[in-house]
Amino acid sequence: MGFRYDIRLSGSGGQGLILMGIVLAEAIGLYEGKFVAQTQSYGPEARGGSSKAEVVVSDEEIDYPKALKLDLLLCMNQKSCDDFYMDLKPDGLLVVDSTFVTQTPIAKAFEIPFTRIAREKLGKAMAANIVALGAISKLTSIVSSRSLEKALLTRVPKGSEQLNRQALKDGMTAARKALKNAGSQTGNNWVDEEA
Amino acid sequence: MGFRYDIRLSGSGGQGLILMGIVLAEAIGLYEGKFVAQTQSYGPEARGGSSKAEVVVSDEEIDYPKALKLDLLLCMNQKSCDDFYMDLKPDGLLVVDSTFVTQTPIAKAFEIPFTRIAREKLGKAMAANIVALGAISKLTSIVSSRSLEKALLTRVPKGSEQLNRQALKDGMTAARKALKNAGSQTGNNWVDEEA
Repeated sequence: MGFRYDIRLSGSGGQGLILMGIVLAEAIGLYEGKFVAQTQSYGPEARGGSSKAEVVVSDEEIDYPKALKLDLLLCMNQKSCDDFYMDLKPDGLLVVDSTFVTQTPIAKAFEIPFTRIAREKLGKAMAANIVALGAISKLTSIVSSRSLEKALLTRVPKGSEQLNRQALKDGMTAARKALKNAGSQTGNNWVDEEA
Repeated sequence: MGFRYDIRLSGSGGQGLILMGIVLAEAIGLYEGKFVAQTQSYGPEARGGSSKAEVVVSDEEIDYPKALKLDLLLCMNQKSCDDFYMDLKPDGLLVVDSTFVTQTPIAKAFEIPFTRIAREKLGKAMAANIVALGAISKLTSIVSSRSLEKALLTRVPKGSEQLNRQALKDGMTAARKALKNAGSQTGNNWVDEEA
């Protein structure tokens, strides 16, 4: 079996997780030459307001497109974090929106306030999903920021390109800080100050 | 094994097939109480401009979310029709956009000029995917027009609700005509005249 990388993006309905999944899948599938399957599932429970989108990346054709054990789990609210962290691989990466996730169930996680950043820096809390995408491109090597921007700009409404580009950038900046802090073992992965 | 219904929406990139897949999946999954998995896959060939979205509907949890033998195949261009008609079940339903599909490979098909209808009736060829969704709600019993409209209106840009509602209606009208003609065995599933 070749390389396979399983991603789940989770949170509540209305946080734009499906758009995130599509943009991430297109960025990797169309611009990085890999095989990608992107899935969302709905069941009777979906009406409760939980939402998730999955992206599976491989260097060969994907037989089973649902995410199995996760290499990357993004949680945009507490419930999704509680529900899904057990699906992570032992060395899987957990990234949470610390605006809403106050109890991170495992020690090794990146806690970045995506929604707060979107609200304070962009004046638009709804852009938190795009801030998170930008962060993912820095925290993992699964997608380049250039592919991500290309895919994103074909999927967003006309006139919102500048906002979305900035949201990606703010996410990357926040991720760089989180990586730096993780390196210095402060236990707090994000700081408010510009440094 | 319970009820399972496999759908593939296919055509070229830019025809809005992924949005169609999401709207159809949300309509069925959120408003009709069924289990639904919605998938798109990208591979090195995707850059050529082909696009497809799949929707699997079941009355129980879906283990394998990729479409298998198809109950419904929508083809928005000739290439997708040529590539995929063999994946239909013997009694599967083929629906084609006859604006672009000039050679239908099987006799039992609904041929409706979705793009022409969108262009002529709505002044917007891009709405062909929504016209096709409206038609699907009349040609199959997999989704009600009410669920479809509800799901659609949460996914389209603000200000475009009226256009999208009308696109659904135009699709339903065209489908009713096609059904009537199929019943009277004229061999031509769509007529231009209003009567």
